[in-house]
Amino acid sequence: MTGHRALFDAHVERWIAALPPGGLYEPMAYLLRLPAKRIRPVLTMMACELFGGRSEEVLDQALGIELFHNFTLMHDDIMDAASLRRGRPTVHAKWNTNTAILSGDAMLVMAYQCIGTGSGVLDVFSTHALDVCKGQQLDMEFEQRSDVSLAEYREMIRLKTAVLLAASLRIGAIRAGASVVDQDRIGAFGENLGLAFQLRDDLLDAFGESQITGKEQGGDLRNGKKTWLLIRGLECEQAAGTRVLQQQLERSPLDRDVPAMVNALRVLGVHAEAEAEVRRLEAMATSSLEAVDPDRVRTAPLFALAEALRVRAT
Amino acid sequence: MTGHRALFDAHVERWIAALPPGGLYEPMAYLLRLPAKRIRPVLTMMACELFGGRSEEVLDQALGIELFHNFTLMHDDIMDAASLRRGRPTVHAKWNTNTAILSGDAMLVMAYQCIGTGSGVLDVFSTHALDVCKGQQLDMEFEQRSDVSLAEYREMIRLKTAVLLAASLRIGAIRAGASVVDQDRIGAFGENLGLAFQLRDDLLDAFGESQITGKEQGGDLRNGKKTWLLIRGLECEQAAGTRVLQQQLERSPLDRDVPAMVNALRVLGVHAEAEAEVRRLEAMATSSLEAVDPDRVRTAPLFALAEALRVRAT
Repeated sequence: MTGHRALFDAHVERWIAALPPGGLYEPMAYLLRLPAKRIRPVLTMMACELFGGRSEEVLDQALGIELFHNFTLMHDDIMDAASLRRGRPTVHAKWNTNTAILSGDAMLVMAYQCIGTGSGVLDVFSTHALDVCKGQQLDMEFEQRSDVSLAEYREMIRLKTAVLLAASLRIGAIRAGASVVDQDRIGAFGENLGLAFQLRDDLLDAFGESQITGKEQGGDLRNGKKTWLLIRGLECEQAAGTRVLQQQLERSPLDRDVPAMVNALRVLGVHAEAEAEVRRLEAMATSSLEAVDPDRVRTAPLFALAEALRVRAT
Repeated sequence: MTGHRALFDAHVERWIAALPPGGLYEPMAYLLRLPAKRIRPVLTMMACELFGGRSEEVLDQALGIELFHNFTLMHDDIMDAASLRRGRPTVHAKWNTNTAILSGDAMLVMAYQCIGTGSGVLDVFSTHALDVCKGQQLDMEFEQRSDVSLAEYREMIRLKTAVLLAASLRIGAIRAGASVVDQDRIGAFGENLGLAFQLRDDLLDAFGESQITGKEQGGDLRNGKKTWLLIRGLECEQAAGTRVLQQQLERSPLDRDVPAMVNALRVLGVHAEAEAEVRRLEAMATSSLEAVDPDRVRTAPLFALAEALRVRAT
């Protein structure tokens, strides 16, 4: 991953250096230079190599995906009224909302310019880009609803987060000339990887040590955020006839007893269930990758990347 | 134009009817169904026919351009804090800002899906789409500046308004297999048509009868909006050593004597100069079109459309 990332980061810096001066582009450069793992572009490069291509050949497509991802961050931060991203001011906080809207729009157009017209790549990109918008729409709608089911939540996460990982891999595979079957396998790997990652993130919020995560333990629970854990916890409470979570949610956020909520999730078996679900998703991701390469030789970099993501979030 | 427009409107309605239900798409349908002249898609269809294609062949590209245009309206209305468009609530006023941001984003992606991957079309579309963003950026920056020159204003209008007319025509021409020389000619026609249209619009605001325009005469002047007329007027005042416009601008909008400002523009010769500039731009548009078709036979529909725009705005 280090080599891929260095190659990609140099490509990003070249792109930034070639930007014209002006207020339309400065927010793009600022956001692209915030600390980032570059998971998506690295996936594109790895998928290309897996199917016999060279990672240099997909640098533009990898950049297109990273630009798209940053466009979504720029606009999502407005919609979420978030003032900080990775400890730094968000674009709309540093400049203003209009600048964040317009610079984001231009970034989406420039993402398309990077993706180019290579056969089949553009359709995959647009389809998944639209999925990300659908996911964000569901996320906003769920905030206004109290009856979101686990299946609905999963579909929202799939659209908002997982499909872009799938698209990153698919585009690398397409550019390397992979068969349609292999494109679907690598796409399924990305989707399950993304779902597992998000669920691990939810678990980390509730059960991770705040010294390690750097965030308040149970911050999502305090805010009543409808994660997999809370949705499933409320379902289990209803079945069990208990009301710990429900009663805490009826209080205002600052009055909520977060340790009691975390404990309720353990008692209800939601913690164990979520960990089992993560393992199930990881196993599905693994089996898709093994279908491509039973010996795990050519897929070793992708397995290593998946493992690095797993370790980061436990 | 009537036939082209009916054909296009039916295509828009088919597209709307095929949209999935949901909050992401309703604002698109709403905005697309507001009264509209459909100038851009009609230009695409006419340019395609001019070079031997059938207008049915470019319906998807024409729709892509109209979707792009509506995406810019949805986001510009947020940036301008406009609550009404054609007498109806804007999307962010009817729903909310987040919905207008996200639905606009999705509309841009869907515009790309309609444009497709036909040779050369996508590059033209992206280049001009980015120009429109650059134009909007300049427009916002000019609001904060008092030293905007006529050349800067013209460049802003070219980017924000005129290039999309050029792109509409170019895309129709490309799809019909026009030569590069003819693509450039039809593009130049569109750009000059757009510049003339905008300048006529500025003239209409200051010198048009409010019974005819349906707006307050001189509304732009009252708001101190930096149009061609006001920028040129201030230049002329400086040269002449008078200060009518300058003094009115120092007052608050409601205290401005708009008839005095209109009169000052006449006295300074700005009215006559602007009319001469419109004629110059129209002559350039005409000569580009005559270069394509000296007999004005195949270009008759485009000349008729240009004339209809001209009559509307005098």
